[in-house]
This record gives sequence, C-alpha cells and structure tokens, in this order.
Amino acid sequence: MNYNKITGDVLAAIKAIVGSEAVITGHDELEKYSHDETEDLRFYPEVVARPKSPQEVAALMQLCNAHLIPVTPRGAGTGLSGGALAVMGGLVIAMERFNKVLAIDEQNLQATVEPGVITEEFMNQVAAKGLLYPVDPASKGSCFIGGNVSHGSGGPRVVKYGTIREYILNLEVVLPSGEIIWTGANTLKYASGYNLTQLIIGSEGTLAIVTKIVVKLIPRPTLDALMLASFSSNEAACATVSAIFRAGIIPSAVEFMERRGVEWVKENDGIAFDLKDDIEAFLLIEVDGTNQDVIFTDCEKINQVLEEFDCKDVLFADSAAQKEELWRLRRTMAVSVKSNSVYKEEDTVVPRASLPELIKGIKQTGLKYGFESVCYGHAGDGNLHVNIIKGTMSDVDWNNRLKDGIREIFELTVSLGGTLSGEHGIGLVQKDFMPIKYSEVHFALWRGIKQVFDKNGILNPGKIF
Amino acid sequence: MNYNKITGDVLAAIKAIVGSEAVITGHDELEKYSHDETEDLRFYPEVVARPKSPQEVAALMQLCNAHLIPVTPRGAGTGLSGGALAVMGGLVIAMERFNKVLAIDEQNLQATVEPGVITEEFMNQVAAKGLLYPVDPASKGSCFIGGNVSHGSGGPRVVKYGTIREYILNLEVVLPSGEIIWTGANTLKYASGYNLTQLIIGSEGTLAIVTKIVVKLIPRPTLDALMLASFSSNEAACATVSAIFRAGIIPSAVEFMERRGVEWVKENDGIAFDLKDDIEAFLLIEVDGTNQDVIFTDCEKINQVLEEFDCKDVLFADSAAQKEELWRLRRTMAVSVKSNSVYKEEDTVVPRASLPELIKGIKQTGLKYGFESVCYGHAGDGNLHVNIIKGTMSDVDWNNRLKDGIREIFELTVSLGGTLSGEHGIGLVQKDFMPIKYSEVHFALWRGIKQVFDKNGILNPGKIF
Repeated sequence: MNYNKITGDVLAAIKAIVGSEAVITGHDELEKYSHDETEDLRFYPEVVARPKSPQEVAALMQLCNAHLIPVTPRGAGTGLSGGALAVMGGLVIAMERFNKVLAIDEQNLQATVEPGVITEEFMNQVAAKGLLYPVDPASKGSCFIGGNVSHGSGGPRVVKYGTIREYILNLEVVLPSGEIIWTGANTLKYASGYNLTQLIIGSEGTLAIVTKIVVKLIPRPTLDALMLASFSSNEAACATVSAIFRAGIIPSAVEFMERRGVEWVKENDGIAFDLKDDIEAFLLIEVDGTNQDVIFTDCEKINQVLEEFDCKDVLFADSAAQKEELWRLRRTMAVSVKSNSVYKEEDTVVPRASLPELIKGIKQTGLKYGFESVCYGHAGDGNLHVNIIKGTMSDVDWNNRLKDGIREIFELTVSLGGTLSGEHGIGLVQKDFMPIKYSEVHFALWRGIKQVFDKNGILNPGKIF
Repeated sequence: MNYNKITGDVLAAIKAIVGSEAVITGHDELEKYSHDETEDLRFYPEVVARPKSPQEVAALMQLCNAHLIPVTPRGAGTGLSGGALAVMGGLVIAMERFNKVLAIDEQNLQATVEPGVITEEFMNQVAAKGLLYPVDPASKGSCFIGGNVSHGSGGPRVVKYGTIREYILNLEVVLPSGEIIWTGANTLKYASGYNLTQLIIGSEGTLAIVTKIVVKLIPRPTLDALMLASFSSNEAACATVSAIFRAGIIPSAVEFMERRGVEWVKENDGIAFDLKDDIEAFLLIEVDGTNQDVIFTDCEKINQVLEEFDCKDVLFADSAAQKEELWRLRRTMAVSVKSNSVYKEEDTVVPRASLPELIKGIKQTGLKYGFESVCYGHAGDGNLHVNIIKGTMSDVDWNNRLKDGIREIFELTVSLGGTLSGEHGIGLVQKDFMPIKYSEVHFALWRGIKQVFDKNGILNPGKIF
C-alpha cells in the first residue's frame, strides 16, 4: 500500500475537525505517542489528534481514507505487542478524551463506558454499586478499557470469570469508511447475524475504532482468601495447577511466579518477603465467593492438593494489607523485570496441563541460545508470560540469533496445542511468528476480513499479519 | 446466483465420495430432510449425502463449488428458524454420522466432540466424570451439538453459565473451498489474529461446516434447588426477574411461562399440576452450587424478592422426581403449543429489565391484529419465545396481515435495546425483519464476510440476509 504523508492542507483539515488545541505535531510532544510498553520500540507519528466524539473520529477516518493516510488508534499505550505504534507514520488517533463512564444500569447489570476510561477506575465505580467487572489486567491502574477490548484482554480472574469477550455486549464503532454503527445489541444473548462484536474484540484496532462499550456486570463476591504456595521447582508448581481444577475447585486466580521475578520485585519495589533458598517457584491462589464456609472448604481442598504436589510452604494472607502486598508482588513483576534489563516478553498459552512441559522447554531453549528468562503469568489459564532477559547477551546475539530461540519457544507452544498470544495480542512484534501456527488459508481469511472493513488498508497497518 | 442442478455425473461423483449407501435420492426418504421444526415449512433437497469424515465433507464441497450446486449442512433438524432447509435445492450434507465423543480430557477439562453428537448424550458423558457442559437447549434430547454451535445456542443455564460461545475453544471446519482448518487453539485464552472460532459460532452454517468441536468443561455443581413461583400477571412475573439479580443472586435458571402454555402442557403431557384460577404466569427458578447452606440462603433471598413482587405462591420441588417434572413442564412447552395449533415462534431478546414492557406490547399487538400468543422462555437473559397461535385466524390474515404484527413486535424489541433472535438464529424465517435492527452498513459487512469465506455463495444460500 502506498500511503501519503500528512500535508499542510490535511493538517488544517484535522485541526478543523478536532480543534487546534487537540492536535499535536511537535516532536517532543509526539514522543509520548511514539512508544507503548513493548521493548524499547519507537515510531513517531506525523500528527496526533485527540478527538472527543464518534463524529470527530468519523470525520478523521473519512479524511484519512480520502488521502490514504495511515491511522493508528491508541489507548493508554500500555500494550505489550506494539499494537499502538504508528509504524507507517501518519495520524495517531488518541482516545484519551473518551474518558467517561456514561451509565451504570443497575436494573440490567450493564454499563456503557467510553474506551478511554482507565480499567481500574471503571472497576471501582461499579464496585461502589456492589457490582463486579472482573477483567483486570496487571496494568489495570493505567490501561484503558478500549485497549482491553482491542486485545481481548484477560488478567488473573479469567480462570473463574472469563476474558473480556464474555463481558462485552455491544460496541459502538467507527469504520474506516467513517460510518458509525453499533455492532450488536445490549442483550445477554445474541443470535442475529455474524457476530461483529466478537469479531472486533481482539482485532487490535485494525478493523474499526471503538467509541462506546456496553459491558455486562455481575454481583460482586463479598469475600475472598489468598494464599501463596512455594515450590522447589517450576514443574512442580505448574503440575499443581491442573490438579486444583480436577479437585473440583474454580479459584478466582492461580498465578505462577518464578523465583527470579520475585527477587527482582523485592529489590525494585521493597516488598518485605522471606525468600528461602530452596524455593524456585510460587503459585498465588485466590478463591472468592459470598460464603465463608465455602471459601474455607475450598482452601482446605486446595491445601490437600498442594501437599500432594510437594509444596514447601503455604502462606495465607491474614489481612487486606497482606493480600494487597501479595498481589502487588505479582502485578509489579513486569515493571521490575523491565527496570532490571532490556527484555522481550512473549505471551504463550497452552492447555493448562501442558504448562510443566512448556516451562521446561523454555529453560532448555534458553540454555541452547544463551538467554535467561523470567516466567510468570496466569497459570490457571495455561497463559505464561515469558520474559527473555538480555542481561549479558551480546547485541548481535540479541538482535539476530535470539529470534531462532523465540521461534523454538513458539514451536513448542504450538506443538502443545497452544498459540502465540493469550492476551497481549500479536501487534507488531509477534507477527513474523504467526506462520508457525497458521496456514495461508488463515491468512487469506484474515486479509479478506480486513479488506471488507478497510478496503484501503488505512487502519493500523502493519499489524497482526 | 445461478445454481446448477445435480446431474447424473455429479450424483455419481457424490456416491464415489461418500459411498452409495450414504446417499439418499428417493422422495420418501428425502422427506425427513425437507423440514426442521420451523412451522410447517418443506423444502426438498435434490440429494442428501451422509459423509463420515472431514475429508469427505471437503471433497463434497469442492465438487459442489466446481459445479455451483447449493450445499445445506444439517444437524438434527431441530432448528426453529429454518437454517437447515435446502431452500435452493441442491445437496444436503447431513452430519448425523459425525456422532462420536472423541476425547474427554480430564487433565485440561476439555472435550473434543463431533458435531453430530446429541447434546444431552454429551452432557451425560461428561457428567459421569463429574464435569459440567452447561449449554442445554430445550431440545437437548434430540439436537446436535454442531447445530448448537451454528446457532450460538443458549438454553436455561445461560443466565449463570453463559452461552455456547463461552464453551467453544476451537473448531475444525471445512471451508466452501474444501480446505480443512482449525479455527483457533485449544486454549482458554486467545489473542492471536481475528477470532475465527467466534465468527463461525452463530453463522448458521453459511461460512463453513464444522467437523470437530473442542469444548471447555467445568467442575459440576453437586446440589441444586428448584422453585416454581406463581403470579397473577405476566408483568409482575417479568418485573421480578431483574430484582432477583439486583439482590445479588445469580440463579442457574430463571424461566418464564405463561398460563396458557402451562395449560397446554397439562392437557398434552398429562402433568399433574394444580393451576389456580388467579394465576397468569410462572417463574421456574433454579439455584445450584456445592454447598447446601449457600443454596438455602440464596433461596431465602429469592423468596424475599418474590414476596416484594406480589408472588401468589411458591412451590419448592422436594424430590428429584418433582424437579424433573417441573423441568418437563417447561421443556415440553414448545411441543405442546405445536400440537395444539399452527404457530409461529419468535425469539425476542431484550435487556432483562425491559421484559414487562415487551410482554405488554406483545399482548397489545395481538389484540390489534387478532392473534393469541403464548410466551415463555429464558427470562433471566431477557430472552422471550413468543409463540403466535393461528387458532381461528383466517388463512388470509395468517399469511398476509400477521407479518405486520410480527414486525411491530420486533420494532418494539429493538426499541427496547434488544434484537431479533437470542438463540434460535435468523435462518430463513426472520431474515425479512433484519432491516428493522440493522442498516445497510451491517449488511455490507456481513455480505463481505460471506464472500471471503464462500466466493461462489454455495453454502447454505438464502439464510440470514
């Protein structure tokens, strides 16, 4: 596709649509929009526009379509696959002014929210009404709910509550043509034509720009219990995971953490935590509900499973503060890894019983290619975040040879019945690995769908495939 | 599209693919494949083939694509929107020999199943292992799980457990081109390209033919309680529904039944049931779980809500036999209505708090157009099955004027934030009403997607749009 640069005339038109004060062109100001949280990648857009209504987004789309200017939609920029990077330059549409919770409908347990609302703020607003929106990625304090929709986000509670796919009822979107439509209806069931809502979820901003989101809410569990189980090997910790489910328990979270990750959080974040020498891995296990006896019984059963799997130690959080600290340990791990070394993060996902084999293979690949890795993630879903650490690796190996190692990790993942990304998306950095799992038939279908929505290919080009 | 008839040569090729014994051409034998459960519609295919492998399906698809012969995939023929009807003639591919549960993976709580397995048989097989597959449409004793996938099916437990969308992890499908692909991965999370699995679900056999289904299973609740609440008005019963959820309860079913439906089941099915004169509507409410105290507390809370909403009487099922009888009351209602009169069934769905307004409007429309209706369905999801009874209506009114009445019902449904079908699909009989809800922009996207999968339009033509 031959795209055009943004000319003075087009810039004037952009300013006329959103107002001059909502247009950014200075290099320093553009820096913030040149990266997300993916490695150290930088791509400067030519212009950033900050519209405040679907109509403004629509007008920008029509303008860019007419002039063949690439458009990259952007949420909070917390993505881990480069989905929000303007790799072809052009216009970034920053959704940060779509920051309102428009309605919380307690009659129907639904809410209507704009995409630029911070996920945790939305969770807190519905929690204040006794309701739960359970999709809480580690970045919940800074990510936008619109970005979560684009990536089909998960987080620790997926294991009990499902991904964002199960909570999005309807979307208002702007198509590349500038048309504004609702993709579905505000109903809990939907069997009326191809499901455009589900197609947009996880499409990483390549099919349409989301401008309103109708969300399903559920009654809020009032009680929970949190335990941290310590193991002498990664494999033992991972093997425990599927046994917990086989015991008939559905925990609200089962998070895996490798020792090295915990060490780095300790150093970086000052969390007081007694880390014994013989411990290699941890499971952070949460159960929630509305009845203390049930939670107690579930914890007992989990404890039995842990004993069968050679768990060394179980710490029960005995206060809200301790729960918060244990969760902080897990949530800040990505930040701590990042502050310790240049790294690359892969988002492998497999059927959960294959986790021990996956983690063993990752470590073997690391030995072969000379890299260290820190693994953690949503073990209850079989979703393991693999942080490959540059450490002392040479730039040549890091930039060239490492790719073969990552390829081997993905080949293993796929051979175990898994796929490349569970929740981070493919974006820019995983797309070269997609043929490991997907055939030309898949690519042809995806390209065809893309073409139906975006015949000129202006929307978030260079992503996924 | 100009389709061709099946010539002698093509018939010979079909026989060569699946074997002569798996090909049906006689008019009497074709009768069974000429209808589903939709009204009294009849469309005879030219030929029925009963393949037994994805490769045979693929060869049939290639053959029909090369000769421009319409192909209609068919499950058990229990559909209520005409999706399995060969409206253009041609070949019906009957999936009844894909009748094996291939694997139940207790390590990962997943199963792999062929599309021609009867839903209830699959449920029973997983139940025997202490697991739950909760998607149980009223026709579970006869429908195929493949048909459930095609329609995005629901059933009474959606209200707690979600629709089939939340249980399908991966699909093996045959495309109209004859290519065989897996749509995704056997993982609980998936963020790797446009979600083809979710796109195929609910596409009513117009994009691909499903040949294997990977299903998520969950631990089985061991206890339940069932109560039948009686109300003196439809509106009071419907208004109660959203109050139950606001009280913080998630029942495993909240089914609405109108008096007339119960009367007809009594007559037709011989269920002993004391139907008091002042009762107009019922809610059948189930809660399930693993702890008797929690279930008891939930029932208490529901009882409090029922009292607030002028419930006349609550019957608690006190035995498994009584539970089964109350469920039979609900499940056989469609059959009883059908045996009493020619009827049309609409599958309206709205946000649940709008149910009272919907049912009131349906009755007013009935008065205006001179038809009676029997309403029942999954009130917990806002999903109301509207059975319009021909009764003494003249054939002229039934065939011509009624359409305007149905249109008014759908207009009301859409104005309340709902849509045309919650779980039955659009198929043949609702497609003329789709423009009430959907714009030309939607149709263009749907047609475009259809074209990507099926460029010659051979697969299940004449459905949805």
